[in-house]
Amino acid sequence: MKKFHLTAGPSELYFTVEQHIQQALKENVAVISHRSKAFQDMFGFTASQVREMLNVPEDYYMVFTGSATEVWERLAQNCISKKSTHFVNGSFSTRFHQFAEAWGHQTQKIEKPLGEGFNADDFSIDADSDFISITQNETSTGVQFPLEDIYKIREENPDKLIAIDAVSSIPFVDIDLTKVDSLYFSVQKGMGMPAGLGIWLFNERCLERAKEIKASGRHLGGYHDMFTLLKNAEKNMTPATPNALGIYLLGKVSEDLLRRKMDIVRSETEYKAGMLYAAVGAHKDLDYAVKEERVRSKTVIVIEILNGRSPKDFMAYLEEKGLVVSTGYGPNKATQVRIANFPTHSKELYFQLIDLINAW
Amino acid sequence: MKKFHLTAGPSELYFTVEQHIQQALKENVAVISHRSKAFQDMFGFTASQVREMLNVPEDYYMVFTGSATEVWERLAQNCISKKSTHFVNGSFSTRFHQFAEAWGHQTQKIEKPLGEGFNADDFSIDADSDFISITQNETSTGVQFPLEDIYKIREENPDKLIAIDAVSSIPFVDIDLTKVDSLYFSVQKGMGMPAGLGIWLFNERCLERAKEIKASGRHLGGYHDMFTLLKNAEKNMTPATPNALGIYLLGKVSEDLLRRKMDIVRSETEYKAGMLYAAVGAHKDLDYAVKEERVRSKTVIVIEILNGRSPKDFMAYLEEKGLVVSTGYGPNKATQVRIANFPTHSKELYFQLIDLINAW
Repeated sequence: MKKFHLTAGPSELYFTVEQHIQQALKENVAVISHRSKAFQDMFGFTASQVREMLNVPEDYYMVFTGSATEVWERLAQNCISKKSTHFVNGSFSTRFHQFAEAWGHQTQKIEKPLGEGFNADDFSIDADSDFISITQNETSTGVQFPLEDIYKIREENPDKLIAIDAVSSIPFVDIDLTKVDSLYFSVQKGMGMPAGLGIWLFNERCLERAKEIKASGRHLGGYHDMFTLLKNAEKNMTPATPNALGIYLLGKVSEDLLRRKMDIVRSETEYKAGMLYAAVGAHKDLDYAVKEERVRSKTVIVIEILNGRSPKDFMAYLEEKGLVVSTGYGPNKATQVRIANFPTHSKELYFQLIDLINAW
Repeated sequence: MKKFHLTAGPSELYFTVEQHIQQALKENVAVISHRSKAFQDMFGFTASQVREMLNVPEDYYMVFTGSATEVWERLAQNCISKKSTHFVNGSFSTRFHQFAEAWGHQTQKIEKPLGEGFNADDFSIDADSDFISITQNETSTGVQFPLEDIYKIREENPDKLIAIDAVSSIPFVDIDLTKVDSLYFSVQKGMGMPAGLGIWLFNERCLERAKEIKASGRHLGGYHDMFTLLKNAEKNMTPATPNALGIYLLGKVSEDLLRRKMDIVRSETEYKAGMLYAAVGAHKDLDYAVKEERVRSKTVIVIEILNGRSPKDFMAYLEEKGLVVSTGYGPNKATQVRIANFPTHSKELYFQLIDLINAW
């Protein structure tokens, strides 16, 4: 039986990926030199599609890394001058905070319990911080950071760099990039692709920061520092032999999503999330893991299992019907499950999922 | 017309890769969680095949990076204590030397002109160096570092760490790993795979060095320092969501090569190299770019074009017949071409290549 993965990432491949891989093999995408014109054209196409899909301002740069995890390391090396502020409410935001500390930066940790989000009244950002890390969608807990709160932070902190982890909210999240300095994501979640590629967007302010840090004598990192990545990206190239197949697929899937229209992709995501949350709310043995509605993620839906019933049984029941979902993350494994709501998960699949949940 | 790539890397895919990709799609290799048992089993299989293929001693560790280029950065961070010695005779050995300098290490550069190799009488390694970098096969110039010279360096320098760049000689090179401390390669050359994966082998001595450096207060790097990579690899996992498809293919191609028997894979490589070099020697307008026979690579064959004839014409002539080869590297573009001799390049393909060269 074919099983459909509604896992939080890696997740089900976007339904066109297999056919694009066949085409890539025919076109020798993984064979041609990464210093050839054919590669540069391919890279250029992908960049143009991603830029259109995410409405990236012309003066924002885009480079590729091995993963979004790598971007944490690169931001810590290239963009945090002395002190960084981290909104921490889950495993991934925690990890970036740890990276910054490991690089010897001072840090401010604004922390909330798992499952809770942030409210503007709850925190004040240290004046001497020069960098703000925001996890727009915490994959581990299903908590989102509302865009209006991000924009408010920008208004109140015009001089600090703001970097957005959008790993599990791209391509759904429709963020105004002019109001942040950097955004990064990986491809195995909302883009529905095989893992092994991170995308890092940043503006001139980030580059200026990296220049200052470099001038101060700090080493920004080797082959993947901001300047080396950028110098290559400007020629539609990469510093090392890249995951060319991944870059190709990213362009093709972005093109597919653009053809479907991003408004429709987004409203379908809203619609599916609405349906699933309604089913959760109506079920006597299920509840929202994220109690506050405004910070409840639309793309990673976390469900609390109540009344002594077991997440393990819930998952086994769904898997028997061909649907695979994720366990709760870390300590929440015993009481929660996580269900992805990405563009590759069709409405029909969601109808089926919800029927099954209703019948559990 | 299907074109066969005899390029120095990326190169023609190993002939089983396409079928393994189809199987990977069926088996959901790129969909399953990188924290699942299924992933761990897959990782374990790949590790076992690579270890068998390269005869890796049990007490040597194996971890995955994004590229071999990344390994340079990781070695500079984790294994060079104060001063590194670099044998430099081409673009890739040059680049690692630059990485070490960029990280603030003292370096000793033992340099030879492009196309030349090293002889034990030519150099002496500084006593205060703690790390020796050897490019076993310089992809840019087709110069190899004979294994007996590497073993001699080890004998004379028992206390220094020795790291081997075998990017374009794996799986051909049959090195005794107990005589070096680390070896690394990537998959888009001799393994015939899509790029986007580096393999890094190292022994306990490397780990001890990393521990000393860490104890001295130096940061070893973020998510991909030696300890984090190793802690994950010991559970058959990776620190970040990896190129799982690449890890899967590496296991399958290694298994295919093992089935063919490594002795046969190696003797076929020798045979094809012998044929091609003989054809070059016999051709009035061609010559070996590497004059000294003992340092002439068997896997990247570099040819000098003589008598005013043009490498560009040579390449166009071959391409018209369906064979794609690489330009000379950097300054040698005007006078040289490079031809890969990897396991995916069959004897039949080489017969055809040599017939065409004879007729040029």
